[in-house]
Amino acid sequence: MRCEVVAVGTELLLGQIVDTNSSWIGEQLALAGIDSHFQTKVGDNLGRMTAALEQALDRSDAVIVCGGLGPTPDDITRDAIAAVMGVELHRDDAVAERIRSMFYRRDRQMPANNLQQADVPAGARVMDVQPGTAPGLICPVRRASGSVSPAGGDATAAAGEKVIYAVPGVPWEMQKMVSECVLPDLQARAGERSVIRSRTLRTWGYSESGLAELLEPEMSRLDATGEATIAFLASGMEGLKVRITAKAADDETAQGVLSGVESRAREVIGEAVFGADDDTMESVVLALMRSRGLTLGLAESVTGGLIAARLTEVPGASDVLKGAVVPYDRLLKTGVLGAPDVNAVSEEMALAMAAGACRVLGADVGLATTGAAGPESHEAAEPGTVWIGLHLDDGGEAVRVRFNMARTMVRQLSTITALNLLRTRLLSRDG
Amino acid sequence: MRCEVVAVGTELLLGQIVDTNSSWIGEQLALAGIDSHFQTKVGDNLGRMTAALEQALDRSDAVIVCGGLGPTPDDITRDAIAAVMGVELHRDDAVAERIRSMFYRRDRQMPANNLQQADVPAGARVMDVQPGTAPGLICPVRRASGSVSPAGGDATAAAGEKVIYAVPGVPWEMQKMVSECVLPDLQARAGERSVIRSRTLRTWGYSESGLAELLEPEMSRLDATGEATIAFLASGMEGLKVRITAKAADDETAQGVLSGVESRAREVIGEAVFGADDDTMESVVLALMRSRGLTLGLAESVTGGLIAARLTEVPGASDVLKGAVVPYDRLLKTGVLGAPDVNAVSEEMALAMAAGACRVLGADVGLATTGAAGPESHEAAEPGTVWIGLHLDDGGEAVRVRFNMARTMVRQLSTITALNLLRTRLLSRDG
Repeated sequence: MRCEVVAVGTELLLGQIVDTNSSWIGEQLALAGIDSHFQTKVGDNLGRMTAALEQALDRSDAVIVCGGLGPTPDDITRDAIAAVMGVELHRDDAVAERIRSMFYRRDRQMPANNLQQADVPAGARVMDVQPGTAPGLICPVRRASGSVSPAGGDATAAAGEKVIYAVPGVPWEMQKMVSECVLPDLQARAGERSVIRSRTLRTWGYSESGLAELLEPEMSRLDATGEATIAFLASGMEGLKVRITAKAADDETAQGVLSGVESRAREVIGEAVFGADDDTMESVVLALMRSRGLTLGLAESVTGGLIAARLTEVPGASDVLKGAVVPYDRLLKTGVLGAPDVNAVSEEMALAMAAGACRVLGADVGLATTGAAGPESHEAAEPGTVWIGLHLDDGGEAVRVRFNMARTMVRQLSTITALNLLRTRLLSRDG
Repeated sequence: MRCEVVAVGTELLLGQIVDTNSSWIGEQLALAGIDSHFQTKVGDNLGRMTAALEQALDRSDAVIVCGGLGPTPDDITRDAIAAVMGVELHRDDAVAERIRSMFYRRDRQMPANNLQQADVPAGARVMDVQPGTAPGLICPVRRASGSVSPAGGDATAAAGEKVIYAVPGVPWEMQKMVSECVLPDLQARAGERSVIRSRTLRTWGYSESGLAELLEPEMSRLDATGEATIAFLASGMEGLKVRITAKAADDETAQGVLSGVESRAREVIGEAVFGADDDTMESVVLALMRSRGLTLGLAESVTGGLIAARLTEVPGASDVLKGAVVPYDRLLKTGVLGAPDVNAVSEEMALAMAAGACRVLGADVGLATTGAAGPESHEAAEPGTVWIGLHLDDGGEAVRVRFNMARTMVRQLSTITALNLLRTRLLSRDG
């Protein structure tokens, strides 16, 4: 089974919007084991859209076309699909009613042109899942064999019934339709009766080659059994993700395989696994503190409020986070936080700031950062030099890190490094 | 002149990397007045890359292929271009020397396979600009007329010499090559001897239709003279950009036109223009404070450190920003900041926090936020309700805003609204 993605919208070609939808769909197809060899972006032009769809059908068994299902005159994906199918559009009364009631429920007047969204190519099926006013469409297309282009097509992809799935360009509407309708339909067409499930471990501290070395025995074992695969995904400054994907006859079996691989992976990677799936470093730190009944106070100099901003992004952070002081002026380090008059980028200062944060903010645990973010050096410290201080009831500690990078990166890496230090310290207290 | 973009890399199809390069190139082509009707993503596969390039050449006069110029075995863009040109690759000694000396200057050993990057299709020209080890290539391709595909090609795009530009996938290397080599070469081929210059005004507070109404007379005038165009670009929660683009015989004339349009636009938009080009709200606020010799102290509750984080992102912020207090626990509002024991989401609290920030942090100006970010309400305030307080030597003021949005957006919008309040207050003091 081979499936292409066609993203529709002149704004995509003009670079006014980055096409993240195709990337997301590409990832889902890969996870589901469906090959995808091309992705195309095309503007709101009937001739060129039709050409792009025709070509994608020539090369592949299925096409997901994303965007152009809205109510305005430049939303012509429906027309392009009808042209490719060689049929007319007709108004689907059930869909029209669905759209009308959607406006009614939101107590809003429906503009007349929204009914255009109920126009469906004859022979197409409307998806059951419809999160917004745009219905998703499943459009069977009969292709004569012999229409194979030299551009990567082959015989298996040529004959018989193919399919175009039309989904809206609004990301959350598209994602729901692709997950709940398109992928199951594609798998059914592929005669695939298995389920595919994945779990992601979030790690911090290892390089990709380091993780690969640790996981080598497990990956060899999986190569032999074929019950699951392991992939490494970079996630910028947020560490590396280890994604485990299992294919099995049913959900229960797949989850069992995932749990087995996960526990073996956690065993070898150890504390560098900070969470799974939707966990973030900040949500994990807050949960660890909360479960221990501890409160946190921050003193942020080089990170300038970034740690506080990340923690407060999590709803309900206030039961753990007392607050933060950002002593950007060195006098505030001594004045507000009561630190001694020492070099601002030093172990002594980091420890004093962390202790001061506890005292001033009335917190159990104090976390502090001080350093030179760059591009200039700061109090004789080279740009990228950062001290992180941690104060707990059983004493303080400070670590020095050096990031030979631009200002933004130094600040971001200092933030996640500080949170990770607190995390590992809490875990080792228990051990 | 018509130019397509082909982005190369299996990781793009798998969704491991979002293809921002094509978007950036699309925007540059649009600015330069060059039509671009399709963008294609293709994996590291010789047959499919060749097919994608062939097709793009059939439909357009030029193709920019991005990625696949590295030193590893899956970097085969050079081979695909040679196949399309019908020529062999040969080792370019000058390029090989350039790569060798690049490693030498960085005091690093050159891996032998880096020399693969010096392999150039016969007849191709190496770009002068080479920021990294991958050389950019300008590859003329003679296309017989009659090869026009039905997919959007036309007669003008069919005959004579066409061109493939190969640039690396590393964004900063690609951007330098496209700006300095590809676009001028494309314009020369189009017989274009004019220059294109643009200037962007950053605005905050107007909707797109509001800006369009204000600028209508100027836009009508420009429609008639054709000396420049005005476009509106959304920039997420950072307001709207007004981009003025002028085409003229030389740089001086273009700059003159831009300055004229800019001053007329500033006149009608007024204070809602907060900056130009690379200015950000935070860089502008810091510059205004600095020029007035004023220092700033922050008390952030609902924004939880975001204002401090944005200001401290700007190098040299410390001469204006004294620091911040994030009193996430309500007791710290009264304790550390000395605010009265009133409702935390109120005018009185916002004013007291701003005054407290001045006092505690020793600053001339205090800026404070307090509110309910959501999803829960906070001290009887509905989610999305935010008070912003401002304290200056000539008194205080507070404004209430309401953002009916998700937590992240409420926090981000509160941050920029607070900075903008400070900005406009500083400007009105002078008036």
